[in-house]
Order: sequence, then structure tokens, then C-alpha cells
Amino acid sequence: MSGSGASRTGAGTAAERQTHMAREVAQQADAVAATFDALLPLRQDLRRMFAGRRHVLFVARGSSDNAAVYGRYLLGAHAGVVASLAAPSLATHYGPPADDGRPAGAPLALDDTLVVCVSQSGATEEIVATQAWAARQGAATVAVANVPGSPLLRTADLALQTQAGPELAVPATKSYLSQLAAMVVLGTALAPDPSALDADIARVPAEVERLVDEQQGVDEAAAALSASRHPLVSGRGMAMGTALEVALKLEETCLRPVRGLSYADLRHGPIAVVDDDVLAVLVSAGDGPLVGAMTELASDLRARGARTVGVGGDAAFADAVDVPVAGPRLPEALAPLGLVVPMQLAIERAARVLGLDPDAPRGLRKVTRTDA
Amino acid sequence: MSGSGASRTGAGTAAERQTHMAREVAQQADAVAATFDALLPLRQDLRRMFAGRRHVLFVARGSSDNAAVYGRYLLGAHAGVVASLAAPSLATHYGPPADDGRPAGAPLALDDTLVVCVSQSGATEEIVATQAWAARQGAATVAVANVPGSPLLRTADLALQTQAGPELAVPATKSYLSQLAAMVVLGTALAPDPSALDADIARVPAEVERLVDEQQGVDEAAAALSASRHPLVSGRGMAMGTALEVALKLEETCLRPVRGLSYADLRHGPIAVVDDDVLAVLVSAGDGPLVGAMTELASDLRARGARTVGVGGDAAFADAVDVPVAGPRLPEALAPLGLVVPMQLAIERAARVLGLDPDAPRGLRKVTRTDA
Repeated sequence: MSGSGASRTGAGTAAERQTHMAREVAQQADAVAATFDALLPLRQDLRRMFAGRRHVLFVARGSSDNAAVYGRYLLGAHAGVVASLAAPSLATHYGPPADDGRPAGAPLALDDTLVVCVSQSGATEEIVATQAWAARQGAATVAVANVPGSPLLRTADLALQTQAGPELAVPATKSYLSQLAAMVVLGTALAPDPSALDADIARVPAEVERLVDEQQGVDEAAAALSASRHPLVSGRGMAMGTALEVALKLEETCLRPVRGLSYADLRHGPIAVVDDDVLAVLVSAGDGPLVGAMTELASDLRARGARTVGVGGDAAFADAVDVPVAGPRLPEALAPLGLVVPMQLAIERAARVLGLDPDAPRGLRKVTRTDA
Repeated sequence: MSGSGASRTGAGTAAERQTHMAREVAQQADAVAATFDALLPLRQDLRRMFAGRRHVLFVARGSSDNAAVYGRYLLGAHAGVVASLAAPSLATHYGPPADDGRPAGAPLALDDTLVVCVSQSGATEEIVATQAWAARQGAATVAVANVPGSPLLRTADLALQTQAGPELAVPATKSYLSQLAAMVVLGTALAPDPSALDADIARVPAEVERLVDEQQGVDEAAAALSASRHPLVSGRGMAMGTALEVALKLEETCLRPVRGLSYADLRHGPIAVVDDDVLAVLVSAGDGPLVGAMTELASDLRARGARTVGVGGDAAFADAVDVPVAGPRLPEALAPLGLVVPMQLAIERAARVLGLDPDAPRGLRKVTRTDA
């Protein structure tokens, strides 16, 4: 295996200083603990806001959108609430703010909907504009953002301020994990029994800390990532958002095209292009109804010649992949708060092996304006 | 430019026989006309079914899912109805059929929802199972499928049978375009004025025919596609589903990894990896609120060194791209029924240039089982 040696060499030469990204990944246990402390007491407020409403609609972009994908599954499977992701541009272009002069689309009624806007900065203009639009359409609005006093937090009906603290690296890590914690607060608040997961929630910070410390399989994964020209990342259900986040992080940090695909989408077409040139990163919770299917997918991809990195899963899953990476000891509904951690570490390391600066990827800014 | 010559050579040598895919692309005007004839009279039934309901939820995979993405925008922007795509696996794994022995997830109430299942074959097991599950959760169900007597059509509250006829190539073309026609029927049926687009709907088959005949820019696009190792495809709003469909078709037919990205997602990360190794295919309606942003995106991508193919758009858009491909003369809401056509032609041609058989891509079957 060529990878391990390359990784160790790279870690020693490409960037001797610790990067912001590495430091912020290591700060995540504290960030998540502080976010739970601040937001769990707001579950009663969330339940009251949702009373009489039926749907949750997320509005987000980039990493925040990946957090919302997790929120959608948690609400659907754990809370029994239909949640969906806002169609990009429906609000900002087809139903624009009334005062900008563009023609409005057909009015969408959102009086049965809780609209949840997610943005690290709380200042992304199109998200702020969409929140204002949603309120005018009758929605109750919840903002999830990390920057105190940001426009999104100031103007929401309920502000869920994540407690990641200032994040200096462009790739979101601790702010993303804090958004997942906010999704847990929301998803449990609207569930029949809001406290059903509380004992496991209390264990999350320690599990994040353990994953940052133990790093089982991380060096091997970093080596595989840095050696691959055609990575793809796949996951399903609760772990789907993690797969999308790993793909996005890998692409923006290591500057190579990466596809993040759901299990179903991969089976419905793109699997045709899987051959021995492909590295497949598979993400799976350790339990739940999907780990068996993910294990079969791993075997199928290997039979097509792909090299496979497997994050999390159970013992059979770890046996079925080329490079097993240890995941969290958390039930499926909370596993995403641990699954992403070893891949953040591996991606930061792979970027340095490639001679890149993970803190400042080419062409990206911390606050993105979708419309120039 | 190396591409044009390669394209002509390839067309002459790789496959002298006309492929099923080429023949089926050419049959699309008839398929769409027949589908409109069969389904437009059902708009009253759709309105009645939706009375008292608030949401539309699509269930689909692969090309059918790309058709549903168009349906979502059409419903949101034209009809003022909140529509979303079902989360993969929420129904089949977290809320499974009651008789299969697996633990059911928290019950999702769908009594305010119209669930629309879309599948060419009407026989994809997980879609059929999801339709049955949705009915048990209180949804009204509409099936969009092409095969007469298929399980999906037999068991829906209302069957919308598309009229594409038998499709022999594995890549869906005329069945996909017929699904878009079904989306138009649904999207106009639930709009405040169902007949508002009828004059333009009547022009769609002739526009499809014209695009199949004129092929302006298709040879150049085929050459660019066959020469590119790293294509990406982007679109926005009404044309977003077309971009995803072009990406999927290109990937499964030409056997190379292709990313289909929304305009917003591209701006939020992946644009960092755009350089002179990238071919970007941009899809835009000729009018509407987004063509300006797509034109700016084309200029930005070219400034980063990418080569750009632009499908549709207005004159400024065509000027901003390297390879302009003529689109339909249809308003934005209906443009997707024309925009995909020249790219189907270009992709079929590019596959033959690459020595591949577009009719039978490696590793794919016509009816996909998501779970083995």
C-alpha cells in the first residue's frame, strides 16, 4: 500500500505549523458541548412554535445544507415530521422580496410551515432575504447561525446560536458540527418524546474527543485520498448528509472533483463508471436499517475494482472495505456527529500531503455570495 | 479545435447502424404530443384530488428524479404549491411496509399531501412499496409511468401513463421527455389558471422536432464532451433538473465521472476546483429571472480557464460561452422540454466517438433494484 508512507512524509514536510483547520477540528468536542448547553433548554420554545404547523422547510447552502440534510432525516425518521430542503432560487428569484422590483412568482403559502435557515455567518444575503420572504408567506422562522448579532439571528422568530466560536479556516468544521447539534435540538424538540435521546446526547462530546484522539484508520484514509484522482463518497439515510459533507470538504480542500452520491443515486447510473481508477468513501452508522445495504455496496464496489474507504459501520462493514476508519459509538440517529470527524482529520492531512493549504482553498471566501 | 474532426470521424466508424438511443431521441416529438393528448384531459381530476391538500411530494430515482426536480420548480414557481422530493430511504427503510417485519419509524402524516411516484417501468420495487406506504399514511397517490399495466399505474389513485412507447436503449430519453410532459400537466393542473400555458404547450412538439432536425452546435458540443476528462454540468431554477439529467446521461453513456451541480452549490465550494482542465456545460432557459446569473457564471468559469458549452440562454449567454448550442423557443416554464434534446444528441454522438455503445452502458439495467 503506497499511501501510508506518503502520508507520514507529507505530514512532516508540507506544513510544519498546525493549521487553523486542524486546531478547529480538535476544538469540536467543546463546541458541540457548548451548543447543546445553550440550545437544549430551547426545545420547549421550538415545540410551542411548531404547534399547529405540519412541515419543516430548511434553507441553506454548502456545508449548512449538508447539516440540513441530516436534519431532514432526523425529523422524518425520529420525529415523524415531514421536512424538506427549499428549492434553490424559489424564494430569491421566483418569489423575490417584494421591494426589489422583480416580478413575484405565484405566492407560496407557508402558514403550516416552520422555516429553518442555516448559515455559519448568519450574513449570507440570499439566506437572510429568504428568511424575510418566508415570514411574509406566513412561516414561523428559526435561524441557526454561529456569529452573534448576525442579521439572520436578529430577524428570526427564534435564534439558535451555535457556540463554535470564531472559525478561521475557510472549510467549516466546528461550525458544521455545531449545526448538527442544533439539528439534534430541533429534531428531538419536535419528537413525541423530546428527551428519548438525552442519555446518548450527553455522550456526544466525549465521543468526538475520543475520535480526535484515537484516529484509527485516519492516516491510511489520508493516504488513499491524496493518491486518488476520482474519489466518490456515498452514504444513506441519517449518514447521507455526512457523505455530502465529506465530498464537499474533500473537493474544496484537496481541489479535486469529488462526487457525493446517495446510495440510491449511485446504484441508478453512476455505478456504471466505477472501475479500478475509483476510490469510494462509504459512510455508515454502526447500527440501524442501512448498515447491511452499505456493506453490500462496499462488496459490489470492490468487485468492480474500486478501492474503498469505510467510515463507521459494524464489524461486517469494516471487513468489507479496504481501509476501515473507526466511527463513533453512538446510535444511528446521532452517529453523524461523530462520523465526519475522522474524515475531517484525513482530509486536512491529505491536503497537506498534496502541498495545499487547507485553511485557504483557492477561490473560496468565508461568506459566499451566490449572486455576484 | 480538435473536437469537430474527431466527432465526424467517430460518427463514421464507431457505429454505422443507427442506435436505439438516436432513434428514440428522434421519436420524442411524437412521444410528447401523445402524452399531452392523453394526460391534459386529466387536469380536472388532479385538481379534485388536490382539493384540501397543501403539499406535493415526489418519489423517484435516476432520470425520473430529474424529471421530478423540474416538477418541483414548476409547482413552486408557477402553481404556488410547495413541492419537495422524498428523502431516499425514509419510506422504504425508516417507515417500511408494515408487513415486512422491520421496525417502523415514527409515523409520518401525509393526509395533507399528494404523493407523485415517477418511474419509467412502473415496476421499481422500492417506488411501488413507497406508493403503498404513502397511501397508508393518508396521501393521495398519483403514478407517472410508461409501461401499461405496470404495478405503479395499477395501484395509484390516479394513473398518468406517459405515451413514449417501448424504449430499448438503457439511457432514458423519450420516456424522460414524456415524464416532463406529465410534470407540465400536473404543474398547470394545480395552478390558479390551469390553461395559462396552453398555447405554448401546444408548440412543444414542433419545437422538439425542430431541435432534432436543426442540431445547431450539437457536433461541436459532442466533440467537446468526448475530449473532456472532467465535465461538470450546472443549471438553476426551472433548468436545474435538465442540468442533472444531462450530467447523469453523460456519465452513464460516456462512462466518465460527471458532476451535476446547482448554480448555488457550484458557487459554494466546487468552483474552487475549476481550472483549464474542466469542461463546464451550462443550461439556461432563454428568458426568466436566471439567465443573467447564468451568463455571469459562464464568464466567471471562462476566466478560471474552463471551457464552456452553453445550451439555450439568450444572445448574451451564447456570446459568453465557447460552444453555444441552440435551445428551444419556449418560455422558461416549458424550456426544459426542449433544452435536453440537443444534449441527448451530443451525448449519443460523444459515446460513439469514444467507441462506446450508447444503448447498453456497462453495468446498468433498465429496471434498477436499489436494494440487492
